[in-house]
Formats: sequence, structure tokens, C-alpha cells
Amino acid sequence: MALQERAIRTRHSILVAAAAVFAEVGYEAATISEIHQRANVTKGALYFHFSSKEELAQEVLADQLGSMPQPAPQELALQEGLDATFLLSHMLMLGDPLVRGSIRLTVEQGSPQDGLDRKIPMAGWIEHNVALLTRAKANGEVLPHVDVQNAARVFVAAFTGAQILSKIMTEHADLAESVASVERHLMSSIAVPAVLIQLDMAPDRGARVYEQAMKLRQEAEALLVD
Amino acid sequence: MALQERAIRTRHSILVAAAAVFAEVGYEAATISEIHQRANVTKGALYFHFSSKEELAQEVLADQLGSMPQPAPQELALQEGLDATFLLSHMLMLGDPLVRGSIRLTVEQGSPQDGLDRKIPMAGWIEHNVALLTRAKANGEVLPHVDVQNAARVFVAAFTGAQILSKIMTEHADLAESVASVERHLMSSIAVPAVLIQLDMAPDRGARVYEQAMKLRQEAEALLVD
Repeated sequence: MALQERAIRTRHSILVAAAAVFAEVGYEAATISEIHQRANVTKGALYFHFSSKEELAQEVLADQLGSMPQPAPQELALQEGLDATFLLSHMLMLGDPLVRGSIRLTVEQGSPQDGLDRKIPMAGWIEHNVALLTRAKANGEVLPHVDVQNAARVFVAAFTGAQILSKIMTEHADLAESVASVERHLMSSIAVPAVLIQLDMAPDRGARVYEQAMKLRQEAEALLVD
Repeated sequence: MALQERAIRTRHSILVAAAAVFAEVGYEAATISEIHQRANVTKGALYFHFSSKEELAQEVLADQLGSMPQPAPQELALQEGLDATFLLSHMLMLGDPLVRGSIRLTVEQGSPQDGLDRKIPMAGWIEHNVALLTRAKANGEVLPHVDVQNAARVFVAAFTGAQILSKIMTEHADLAESVASVERHLMSSIAVPAVLIQLDMAPDRGARVYEQAMKLRQEAEALLVD
């Protein structure tokens, strides 16, 4: 393995370990010792890549959207938006450390002194939704009165709340149903009927999107190796 | 002041102080010392009323719905549901310590060891919504396909998410608009059109409901004194 490649892998494994610790105990209670032991690297190696717990947390937050596999493109922009959300839910249920850690860091208020910028992942998701809803509007998928900026925020808010409520009530056991249910209500308030009946909002959609996205990623990686 | 009345007031002031501290620093970082000093009582007085930080937090959580003033009854059950949500948002914006503290305790995941039951306020709000939506259904306010249990959870999830997103992005400066916007989307997915156009979902509805509720409470208290 080339030296650079090894460094990238070490860096990534530290990040995954940090995310797992943040997911379990929150930012405040997480320690550098716990993180470097979990990543199976020395404290020195950790500090070579990251200067502080804050930098680790900020990196986990920044990575929330980027660390997800890309769902397959869809003809309907609204389906693509749903797929990203269902994929995120599915990865949360699978216990993906980067997704779990970044979502806990985002949602927890923390102390005013911790200096973490929790806006980054939220702003990323809003922007992602604005782009999809703009495409959906140009395609005639959404009702003419829909305010794209506003609807983008409503979708982010609704997913966030569904996720938290499901965590509190069922430890995420009903997450897929819970998110699908919120999406069904919201979609019926923005989509034109002819599109609405075509949208796949079944609770197992997330699992199917995940499988397909992982297959696409493996195919892309195989091409790189050749 | 009768002895019993004084004890009730002391107990309440300790609870308010605890809620304020939980709102500021979260459950983990809150200390009994900070709480008794904030309440202006001795540590002994605090322990006379509450055995531990956990009991204080559990009491703040249990009190979330009960501590709110009662909004005025409305002809439309859906308006009454909206009014309770708008009132909660308005009290959050005003910085009411019991509302802020209990909401932070509810939403924060904490550590698995803290033993707090975060289901209580959520279950209370779901039950409250089920009762209102059942009345709304009996009145013909909602579309026939609406599943009351399901819709009740969707409303709780959406408020929770709108609240968190608004806190992260604007420190609650856009909370009233944010919550109104989520409610407008959801209501259009469940209400019959003739009811939908009658619902007051203006962002200043919360302030008006609060004023009226406080007036009703003062009138009720004046009657008790007479």
C-alpha cells in the first residue's frame, strides 16, 4: 500500500471511531483517549491527523452528506429527494457510525462554549432539497404555489423530528415507517396528483435504495482498479 | 402565607431553577449546587423536596404539558390543536424556563445510564393530538382517509423538527414562521378544504393565543381569591 493511501485510511478510521464515540456518549462526554483506542492507533497518530476533539467533531459534521453513497438517479426529482432521505434513515437503522455520530452532533444543543458549527449539515441538506425541488418545479412535478426555499426547510425539519421521535419512542425500530409517514403527508401537500401516485414511499424503499447505491459504488470502484 | 402554600412555592421555584439550568447546559452538565443557588434556597431545602438531579429532571419532563396555560376553546378542533402548538412555540421564544428546559431534556439523547424517561412528554403530546384529531374527525373537519394515530405522531415529529432546525439556524428567531410553515403543509394534507381556509396559521397566532390564555388564567385566579 502506498504511504499516502495508508495515511488516508488511518485518517478515515480515526474519523469513523470518533463518530461512533460521539454517537454513543455525545460530544461533551467523548474523550480523545477513547477515540484513539477505538481506532486502534496511538494518540500521536491521532494528533498527526486532527488537532483536537473539536476538529474531529467538525469534520464528522461536515461529512454528513458527503459520506453517504449516491442513490441511483430517478426520472422524478421528487423520488430522488425521497430516496436520499430514505437512504439516510436506513443507514441510521443499520447503525452506520458516521451517520449516527453526525446526526447526534447536529441535533444536540451542546454548550455555547463548544464552538461547533451545527449549521453545516443542516444547510447542506436544505441546499440539496432546494436543488431537487427546483428541478421538480421545472419538470412540473410540484404544485404551482409551492415556495421551494420554504418547502426545502419543511422537509429537513420533518425528517429531523421523525428521526428524534422514533429514537425516543422505539429506539429507531419504527424509523422507516415514521419517516415514510411524514413524507407521505408532505408530498401530498406539494406534488401534483399524477406524480404523487407514482412516488414510491413504501417503508422498505430505504433498504432497496441502499442496496442499489452500494452496488453502484462497488461497480465504480471496480472500474477504478482496472 | 400558610406553611403549605409556602412549601408549594418553594418547590415550584426549585423546579423552575432546575429547568433553567437544564435549558442552559443540558442534563449531564447541570449540578445540584447551581440549581439550589439559582432557586435561592439552601441545599437542604432542595433535598427536602427532591431526592436527586434525576428526580428534578423527571419532574420537569412530566410537567411539560401541564405547566402551559390552557388556550381558549375553539369551534374547530384543528384550530385548537394548532393553538396548543403555536402557544408552545411562543413560550419557547419568550424563554419560559419550564418549556425550554423540558424540551431540551426531551430532545437530548443523553447517556444510556442517565435513566431519564424521555417518552413521557412525547407520549403526552401524541395523546393530546389523538384526542383533538378524533374530535376533528367526528366533526367532519378531516379527510376520511386520515389515520388519527398516525397523523398525531406526524404532527409531534414535525413540530419537534421545526423547533430544532430553527434553533440551529436562527437561535429560534424564525421559530414562529418555521412552525407555521410546517403546520400549513401538514394541515393541507389532512383538513377538508372548507375547514382549511378557516384555520388561522399566521405566524403571530402564538402571541395572540398566549395573551388570551394568560387573561383567562388571571380571571380564573381572581375568581378563586374572591
